[in-house]
Amino acid sequence: MSKNNAFDNGIVILGAGNVATHLAIAFFKSNNKVRFVYNRSINSAKELALQINAEYSDDLKHVPSDADLYLISVKDDAIEGIANKLNIKHGIIVHTAGGISLDIFANTFENFGVFYPLQTFTKSRKIDLSEVPILIEANNEITKSKLFQLAFNITKSVFEIDSEKRKAIHLAAVFSCNFVNHMYFISSELMQNSNSTFDLLKPLIIETVNKAIEMQPENAQTGPALRNDKKVIENHIKMLSRYPEFENIYRFVSDSIYKSNSKREN
Amino acid sequence: MSKNNAFDNGIVILGAGNVATHLAIAFFKSNNKVRFVYNRSINSAKELALQINAEYSDDLKHVPSDADLYLISVKDDAIEGIANKLNIKHGIIVHTAGGISLDIFANTFENFGVFYPLQTFTKSRKIDLSEVPILIEANNEITKSKLFQLAFNITKSVFEIDSEKRKAIHLAAVFSCNFVNHMYFISSELMQNSNSTFDLLKPLIIETVNKAIEMQPENAQTGPALRNDKKVIENHIKMLSRYPEFENIYRFVSDSIYKSNSKREN
Repeated sequence: MSKNNAFDNGIVILGAGNVATHLAIAFFKSNNKVRFVYNRSINSAKELALQINAEYSDDLKHVPSDADLYLISVKDDAIEGIANKLNIKHGIIVHTAGGISLDIFANTFENFGVFYPLQTFTKSRKIDLSEVPILIEANNEITKSKLFQLAFNITKSVFEIDSEKRKAIHLAAVFSCNFVNHMYFISSELMQNSNSTFDLLKPLIIETVNKAIEMQPENAQTGPALRNDKKVIENHIKMLSRYPEFENIYRFVSDSIYKSNSKREN
Repeated sequence: MSKNNAFDNGIVILGAGNVATHLAIAFFKSNNKVRFVYNRSINSAKELALQINAEYSDDLKHVPSDADLYLISVKDDAIEGIANKLNIKHGIIVHTAGGISLDIFANTFENFGVFYPLQTFTKSRKIDLSEVPILIEANNEITKSKLFQLAFNITKSVFEIDSEKRKAIHLAAVFSCNFVNHMYFISSELMQNSNSTFDLLKPLIIETVNKAIEMQPENAQTGPALRNDKKVIENHIKMLSRYPEFENIYRFVSDSIYKSNSKREN
């Protein structure tokens, strides 16, 4: 029995990737019934469905039409195609994409919204969702209220954010997550190639994050680019000549650090 | 009374910046006598010296010649100039720079080394040094042994690393620290410009770091660049048109994420 009356007729999850998997499991664990998992590859659908006692299929025709919520969590380009093939009686349809507008659903559906968790998910990695912000948007007040109720079942942090603002936040998240991870990736490559290990950088990495969060990033910067230490920078560029992509990143980021700091000082 | 016999005649600190300040205080707290602080600006010299009961000056002629250790922690380009003006009877001279060779001291001194803490320091911010790796290099075994002894007074993590390897580690550290902080800085700018706050990204930022450390960065990547989600990427580039530097960084980093992943998959 669901504790969330708005979704007694159950939730359909469309997709079985990283975000779909983590949200579906969080719904299941908070006693919201996930009835059905659709995925274009049946193996991933099955893998997720078995964890949450749901039915599953790789055929959109088998998706039930009387569920309360249809949550589409697939590659951005595929959202509209799946939505347009659904037969929905009265339920709400949402997607989970930071970069896609609410109005992708506007011409076809009565009740629709966005349910965007501001987090990075990898299927194999467990994660505590209780602090993760969920950004909600909806086309009417009742739908909004229901989506808030569901979101508060899985996290303490729920906000109403419109499409334009959500897209800006998504872009900022790409820098703070994907691009930060790529900086770690480059570090890891450089460490391995000098017979060292990424682990040696751990205290530096953790302090860098703590500084940025506690002091704000504009007050936390250090290093050769900030000091415009040209000899060191030229040496680094020479050391990167084997890695032309990394060399370009080094040049542009160093240049941007120096310019950002000069602007602040003037 | 020092617990570290090798340095009973005291330590001289040349410089009073971020690294000099944190190391001097750590020496003081571990009962190693810091006798003297030199800095070209007398105010910073005084500010540091008063915290550690040391004498201070902005004139290199006043630096005592019979100390056991001379630690130079200034901008890289200034190390050699200061070293060449010192009159040292028997003490060890070291610098703290990741990117500078040991042999900067080779023609002038008898006992010399490098004492490089792999960490980001900001004067105003307290930090626990006990987990911070200190990378040691020295021109002879006795000097090396003394520097190890001193380093183990302030941290559990001490390694002998030669100049070439240290330079590679320093370059990796620039990516994991300065460049990561700049990604946070850009995020913060984007969040502020959409009337949101950097704080909203905190759970994402923390999970990104934990993932990279626990799974290794090459297994932790997610997002539009990895998926080659062209529509989202094009949209992001449009949104960045007001910030040409950030747009360039976005292009180069996205491209590098996609290429790095393709290489792994092939």
